[in-house]
Amino acid sequence: MAQRHPDPADPAAAAVTGEVLADHLRAQATEFLRALRLHREGGAGAESDGAVRALRRSARRISGSLHTFRPLLDAGWAESVRPELAWVSGTLALEQAYAARLERLLLALHRLSGTPVLPAQAAGPAGSAATERGKLAVGAAKAGALLDRQLTLARTRAHSAALRALGGSRFHAVADTMALLAGEVPLTPAAAGADLRPLAAAAEERLTAAVTALPLVRAGHPYNAEALVHGLSPDPSPHPQDAPWHQVRLLLRLHRYAREVLHGDDVTDVRLTAAGQALDRHRDASEAATAAAQAARTPRIAPATAYALGVLHADQRHEVEAARYAFQRSWRTQTVGTP
Amino acid sequence: MAQRHPDPADPAAAAVTGEVLADHLRAQATEFLRALRLHREGGAGAESDGAVRALRRSARRISGSLHTFRPLLDAGWAESVRPELAWVSGTLALEQAYAARLERLLLALHRLSGTPVLPAQAAGPAGSAATERGKLAVGAAKAGALLDRQLTLARTRAHSAALRALGGSRFHAVADTMALLAGEVPLTPAAAGADLRPLAAAAEERLTAAVTALPLVRAGHPYNAEALVHGLSPDPSPHPQDAPWHQVRLLLRLHRYAREVLHGDDVTDVRLTAAGQALDRHRDASEAATAAAQAARTPRIAPATAYALGVLHADQRHEVEAARYAFQRSWRTQTVGTP
Repeated sequence: MAQRHPDPADPAAAAVTGEVLADHLRAQATEFLRALRLHREGGAGAESDGAVRALRRSARRISGSLHTFRPLLDAGWAESVRPELAWVSGTLALEQAYAARLERLLLALHRLSGTPVLPAQAAGPAGSAATERGKLAVGAAKAGALLDRQLTLARTRAHSAALRALGGSRFHAVADTMALLAGEVPLTPAAAGADLRPLAAAAEERLTAAVTALPLVRAGHPYNAEALVHGLSPDPSPHPQDAPWHQVRLLLRLHRYAREVLHGDDVTDVRLTAAGQALDRHRDASEAATAAAQAARTPRIAPATAYALGVLHADQRHEVEAARYAFQRSWRTQTVGTP
Repeated sequence: MAQRHPDPADPAAAAVTGEVLADHLRAQATEFLRALRLHREGGAGAESDGAVRALRRSARRISGSLHTFRPLLDAGWAESVRPELAWVSGTLALEQAYAARLERLLLALHRLSGTPVLPAQAAGPAGSAATERGKLAVGAAKAGALLDRQLTLARTRAHSAALRALGGSRFHAVADTMALLAGEVPLTPAAAGADLRPLAAAAEERLTAAVTALPLVRAGHPYNAEALVHGLSPDPSPHPQDAPWHQVRLLLRLHRYAREVLHGDDVTDVRLTAAGQALDRHRDASEAATAAAQAARTPRIAPATAYALGVLHADQRHEVEAARYAFQRSWRTQTVGTP
């Protein structure tokens, strides 16, 4: 196995070479295949969910390395594989995303109604939403039922689409590519001895530059009312302000994956983790707010339902603002680049 | 004129006696009569508004002193006058309160829609609301029109009620009492030589005790989502959590008025002012949120209107939370008792 885990802050430390990258890609491809086998053997439920999660996890990591360390890999190969991995990861993510969105929105409705949530509901909201609804006010209950219907339908469709994808020829081609990658990594001739650190540093610089462009001073000032500022705009996609934060979330993930290649995934930076969690929360709240706004455009809903969805939308937009504040706090104390 | 303005933190300073209180009450009663004359002479508009404001200002101050320094005043007299002054102040406050509430809500609708507000609207919203409405999304525009109708009606009724009150026998009796007070203050026999400071200190202690009972630690943690927690409750008055803050607002005002008696109103404490402004904002946002929720219960409104009112309600409840945060910040740096 190639040398890894030198201190990247120490310029005298031995270089981390392309061999480390090859090891990492082989390991992740093996992990992908293991998860796929688990998924095919397992039935439905939590085991299948875990296998899908593991598939996405390795797909994201391989795709990230293909991006960050592109100059060390066969260019044509890397460019053809990356979109396929993104397709796998994206297709498999949707079912879980809809389930999480529904859970987030139902929990928020309960919080807003001042009613306690049963532990069973927090664990799996789709099933117990109906029994819990009795304790909510009429508008909140109807809003919950509407979101339940719409997001459960979307989730079911995403589930079918994921199953179709896993059984289709496009996915089989990806699995074949992973099987080959688990054996041999198409490095460029110069890559084996090349230093990974400048490429990893470039990924970190892209992150730092994107963070610098964020309105962090404003985000650090609580209750700035920024996230809701276009909440009633006639614009159909009223929150372009979210995009740079979503972009930082992706760049932070690429930086984290590059760190994993260099230092192994046992070296975690708690502040990096906190920043990433804040950005995940930002993304989730942003999408939940959009789902509430979309549900409010359902024809022929009662005014009380629309009112509850308006309150819910605003609540989630404030969650967006709170997540930006949390990111700013975690980033402020961040010493970038040291493990 | 009696001695005033000693340093209250200095126990060796000469006592501030009941004579200072008598001076203060005479001056405020004179101010009340001057404002009343101004109101009767003036027509409508800004001049009349200013006179009404001055009437309320002195009524509140006299009522406050009657409460804080009650043991030094003829008990039967003080107890009969205070509710009458509260009635004057309350009756005259409503018109301005409805106007300010409408302005606050229309400004918020514009902020939420991402549309700029013309300076003319910020100055007098009721008149220009209609012309501005074109730039808002349909739901926000309809919500604005509904609030405009409801709050303008309430304001007009309050205006009529205030005019009726100012022309009625109950108000004339109050004016007579003020005319007598401007000449002679019914102090108790022992009051002239009594020290005001222990009574002023007791008012401050009541304030401090009430502040201590507030959930300040939670309020100091931004984005705690507390203010909206019962926003969708079936409870018809869902925000009992606001009451202790409203109470502190009143106690802070009594403390400020007692300070004015002792030190004159040229000695202002900027931090006390900031705390008071935060509590005013808390009260205004709380009442605006209630107005938005009430408007949403109007029969036969469109779902888009109800949705906009829901967003607006949540926005104002977050203003409530922001005001608590601001109060906590100003109070934390407060050195109570020094001018």
